[in-house]
Amino acid sequence: MNDLGLVYRTIERAEPAAVEKLSRYGVATIHEAMGRVGLMKPYMRPVYPGARTCGTAVTVLAQPGDNWMLHVAAEQLGKGDVLVVACMTDNVDGMFGELLATSYRARGAVGLVIDAGVRDVAEISAMKFPVFSKAINARGTVKATLGSVNVPIVCAGAAVNPGDVVVADDDGVVVVPRALAAQAADASEAREAKEAATRKRLAAGELGLDIYGMREKLAAAGLKYVD
Amino acid sequence: MNDLGLVYRTIERAEPAAVEKLSRYGVATIHEAMGRVGLMKPYMRPVYPGARTCGTAVTVLAQPGDNWMLHVAAEQLGKGDVLVVACMTDNVDGMFGELLATSYRARGAVGLVIDAGVRDVAEISAMKFPVFSKAINARGTVKATLGSVNVPIVCAGAAVNPGDVVVADDDGVVVVPRALAAQAADASEAREAKEAATRKRLAAGELGLDIYGMREKLAAAGLKYVD
Amino acid sequence: MNDLGLVYRTIERAEPAAVEKLSRYGVATIHEAMGRVGLMKPYMRPVYPGARTCGTAVTVLAQPGDNWMLHVAAEQLGKGDVLVVACMTDNVDGMFGELLATSYRARGAVGLVIDAGVRDVAEISAMKFPVFSKAINARGTVKATLGSVNVPIVCAGAAVNPGDVVVADDDGVVVVPRALAAQAADASEAREAKEAATRKRLAAGELGLDIYGMREKLAAAGLKYVD
Amino acid sequence: MNDLGLVYRTIERAEPAAVEKLSRYGVATIHEAMGRVGLMKPYMRPVYPGARTCGTAVTVLAQPGDNWMLHVAAEQLGKGDVLVVACMTDNVDGMFGELLATSYRARGAVGLVIDAGVRDVAEISAMKFPVFSKAINARGTVKATLGSVNVPIVCAGAAVNPGDVVVADDDGVVVVPRALAAQAADASEAREAKEAATRKRLAAGELGLDIYGMREKLAAAGLKYVD
Amino acid sequence: MNDLGLVYRTIERAEPAAVEKLSRYGVATIHEAMGRVGLMKPYMRPVYPGARTCGTAVTVLAQPGDNWMLHVAAEQLGKGDVLVVACMTDNVDGMFGELLATSYRARGAVGLVIDAGVRDVAEISAMKFPVFSKAINARGTVKATLGSVNVPIVCAGAAVNPGDVVVADDDGVVVVPRALAAQAADASEAREAKEAATRKRLAAGELGLDIYGMREKLAAAGLKYVD
Amino acid sequence: MNDLGLVYRTIERAEPAAVEKLSRYGVATIHEAMGRVGLMKPYMRPVYPGARTCGTAVTVLAQPGDNWMLHVAAEQLGKGDVLVVACMTDNVDGMFGELLATSYRARGAVGLVIDAGVRDVAEISAMKFPVFSKAINARGTVKATLGSVNVPIVCAGAAVNPGDVVVADDDGVVVVPRALAAQAADASEAREAKEAATRKRLAAGELGLDIYGMREKLAAAGLKYVD
Repeated sequence: MNDLGLVYRTIERAEPAAVEKLSRYGVATIHEAMGRVGLMKPYMRPVYPGARTCGTAVTVLAQPGDNWMLHVAAEQLGKGDVLVVACMTDNVDGMFGELLATSYRARGAVGLVIDAGVRDVAEISAMKFPVFSKAINARGTVKATLGSVNVPIVCAGAAVNPGDVVVADDDGVVVVPRALAAQAADASEAREAKEAATRKRLAAGELGLDIYGMREKLAAAGLKYVD
Repeated sequence: MNDLGLVYRTIERAEPAAVEKLSRYGVATIHEAMGRVGLMKPYMRPVYPGARTCGTAVTVLAQPGDNWMLHVAAEQLGKGDVLVVACMTDNVDGMFGELLATSYRARGAVGLVIDAGVRDVAEISAMKFPVFSKAINARGTVKATLGSVNVPIVCAGAAVNPGDVVVADDDGVVVVPRALAAQAADASEAREAKEAATRKRLAAGELGLDIYGMREKLAAAGLKYVD
Repeated sequence: MNDLGLVYRTIERAEPAAVEKLSRYGVATIHEAMGRVGLMKPYMRPVYPGARTCGTAVTVLAQPGDNWMLHVAAEQLGKGDVLVVACMTDNVDGMFGELLATSYRARGAVGLVIDAGVRDVAEISAMKFPVFSKAINARGTVKATLGSVNVPIVCAGAAVNPGDVVVADDDGVVVVPRALAAQAADASEAREAKEAATRKRLAAGELGLDIYGMREKLAAAGLKYVD
Repeated sequence: MNDLGLVYRTIERAEPAAVEKLSRYGVATIHEAMGRVGLMKPYMRPVYPGARTCGTAVTVLAQPGDNWMLHVAAEQLGKGDVLVVACMTDNVDGMFGELLATSYRARGAVGLVIDAGVRDVAEISAMKFPVFSKAINARGTVKATLGSVNVPIVCAGAAVNPGDVVVADDDGVVVVPRALAAQAADASEAREAKEAATRKRLAAGELGLDIYGMREKLAAAGLKYVD
Repeated sequence: MNDLGLVYRTIERAEPAAVEKLSRYGVATIHEAMGRVGLMKPYMRPVYPGARTCGTAVTVLAQPGDNWMLHVAAEQLGKGDVLVVACMTDNVDGMFGELLATSYRARGAVGLVIDAGVRDVAEISAMKFPVFSKAINARGTVKATLGSVNVPIVCAGAAVNPGDVVVADDDGVVVVPRALAAQAADASEAREAKEAATRKRLAAGELGLDIYGMREKLAAAGLKYVD
Repeated sequence: MNDLGLVYRTIERAEPAAVEKLSRYGVATIHEAMGRVGLMKPYMRPVYPGARTCGTAVTVLAQPGDNWMLHVAAEQLGKGDVLVVACMTDNVDGMFGELLATSYRARGAVGLVIDAGVRDVAEISAMKFPVFSKAINARGTVKATLGSVNVPIVCAGAAVNPGDVVVADDDGVVVVPRALAAQAADASEAREAKEAATRKRLAAGELGLDIYGMREKLAAAGLKYVD
């Protein structure tokens, strides 16, 4: 009944224009613009400070402690893809290192998001290949049991389908469903424009209490000032 | 019976001279000088390496996943203040970002200590606004339920009263009660002077065993050497 | 029946030539070359990015919250040693700081690996004294209860004997038993040579599936491609 | 772009016959019969030993620290339903207690699965209302912000759609997609029959090595016996 | 500047009548009645199911891995007291066992709340001496370094002063400040009376939506029903 | 260089008389009698309350998520043995269930200690087969990669050699090295006798302060009483 042992070769990726537009915005902005959904758990961290990626998801469901499918997935990666890896159970072994990073980059991939461990941190940082993981761990893995490629997965608490847009930066990782990519990009643009105006007023000493008109609601909720 | 929904506008801050003097010493030194008390849990980490702050506490008690009171608190911040935020229950949502940092800085605040999450890490790092938090998380919050400002709180395991001195650096966050600020600053100065002398002797190859006179106590405790 | 309160002054250290050769390879490489054994838990992290050490182990078994034995151990440290500290129970207090780093370096030690906390992060980073720990914590410790020096320990899940080689970098910490040091160094050299060749082919766009000859085994295991 | 603030009143539930048949089998059996998929994270535990439930999912997506939607969901519960609650971010507040248990039971519900905390453990245990949660926590929640009812959710790492079958016992919680319920029930029946035969042989002293025919594969993998 | 090494022999305990009245209510009820404050972290669990206590706090601040002060505190325990123990840093060693339980009971104490570990679980359960702890751990402790008795502490995230009322049951541990004991007891009584009426209506099939009058507020907040 | 893929068939077990004598004492007593060493981490918990075992260790080193070696080990189990399982990396999958329990019991084994997960909790509890594990988890495992049997392991932080005595009860799991079994049993007997006398005095209201003669040492350490 499960999908194990299957590699789906044909997936529909989000529109390139929407992906490009989303790449201009930060994870926090996109997440807010979408209505505060789609975020992975905050334990997902960049392997080096300033890492940032935005691309279309190729997904992997892997056994714990087994990176066989990460080799299988390499063949399915195309230009602009981000590999997104979920494990069948919690695992922090080092499933990915510098050699796979070299291979993925050669295929055109622009990043890796993995709910497990990675290694070769120094080399990956030097390569500037953006990797977001749950852990850093020199521990190697076996190649013994099948998983799947391009099936729907739950990665770090977020549902991901092949072809969705994945954006990651210092603030975390957000998933934008393929069908909503253009809409999310537009909403991000609008949000950022609005924030630029707010930023100026805050820098000038105005209070959010006034800019956002919160005082009345706070009073209605019962807020009391004591001198 | 609780203090929820209250904003205390008048607080007594620690003496500026004592705050200034404390700002010269590291968290580990102050914590030792005070007799090893006042430290927050070690999960409190700077958002960027080298972040450092020392100021007087304005406190917030907030609902989990709700940053309404961080906007209310902005108005209570004065020059040299550090906002210290505790949540009513454990929470790591991103309650604070670049816009609030802009606002707080405009008010004269010199830092944020928050037992929860923050976001806009890249922007906050670029601004050099010192933030110490439990987590980094793009996840946004609602503005729906009241908490309080300038009430006594327990933040990351440490009791904090409004007006206390809060010092934070790469080693963690320490709270110096307002009434003890001058005394703690003097004790820190004395400790640092003593350590400077010890450092020279250790660098020259002398052993702490001899400098601190430990050999006799160790023998009395039963230490045995085996060749 | 335990070894508490004992300091073994005479230990047999791994061959200097083997230690030197091991120092050329990364932790992930050595761990793989040894057959994926000897790794400490991944919570052991460098205090500053890029920290790296390779030396012979002097071991300490300490009480939680008590760093007395770290002073006793200083006297047992020789040129090229790495102090490896285990606690009798889980503890993250700051057992080590800049003064001990100064002392250890003066004795010729080349690093510290500690299953507990350390402090004075800024100073240790500036000194470039390589430290790998479970936590960063300003919290100080007492000097009240004996432990032991140079007894077999379990540190962060790995068995360590005095004189073993300890290698640590951004990927973690690996222990090479003294008797296997030369063999592990040779195996690491062989592995790295092989990887260099593979890296070139991967960078040129070849797939690991083909380089490693995985396709047949995957098919035998039942992998199916779906278009 | 999100579904917040929506209550879907019409859902398609799994076939009653399949639900009934699944109720005869344990979580471990069903999970294996499905091919080792659909399991929630192991931190989901019964509130009292021996708790067990099997029913059709009504889903809730809630704000952290806010149980308003658990009241809204009560109206959507029918006979044989299990309420499954996910939070928008990690939270362990006590969102559910004895009063809601009374209400849910009155509506015909047969259990609760919640990726958060519950309270009134003594009362819920006495009522024998099966509850599976991440935590036990007296901490109460507010009723201030909307979530949704009967939208697809990710609960404790597992994707759940309204109408899916949820089975929970001392071993954990498994989700059976609505469309696969009958097939999973049949596979569970087959697995249990097979295990009954194996159990007898193992109890008689036969080895799994022989019953499952493992010796040849182990030898092929390189297993060696040393006397 | 700290209070280490001090035993305060004279403390003011909450009124016996208020303590007795509080003993009739559960932790969740009291916590709600007080306005959702005073609760310890949910990791505090009873050593045996059904454990329950209510008494006046005698407090201890102890070193990690050192239970000397638990012997000192025995002498300060009177009839109806609950010993509340905080450690200076996180620690889960087994600081308390059956012998201390025997001693405390002989002194009239009615329970122990400890932010650390305990052992002799079988014996303590058989004695029915109510113990609430962070961990169960056979690991013993030393008696080497002073702490204090009857100073203000932060235990499991909650501020506790000597003489406060501590109530603990299967749902957790709540602290009622001495001065608020009578008021909290009355509020608990009122809350329980109100809940009894609500319980009947819910059991009869009425919905909280109607009993609590939530429908209008939900609609105002934007809740939409979809058929 | 590792021992993977090896099954050592001949091990030397601790003397039966010493094992029998150790079986009379609790884990806390034995751990103290040995000088506070040999204890596993406190996350090792019994699967059912009151579980208790004492036997000679047959050890397994397994891959994460792979229980093949637990079948191999069954053949090596003899009367009075306890299987002790360590994983090569942290893992909580359900590696053991009721069928293996049936098999192990048929071979004469008296318990299982596993630094991973187990399932079939209800059945194992009903069988009264003592199991101590890190987790309960319905998640099944593969049978694909070799580990070893009867090699030295580190299990839950404790070093275990084949033939050592393993004692487990509600307080945790302690390892007694084979060569020290008789000595540890005698020391446990002596400790228990002494505690029986102390218990009577404590129950009569005497204080540990007086029984253990602590008052003088406390005064010397600087303890002060304040009225």
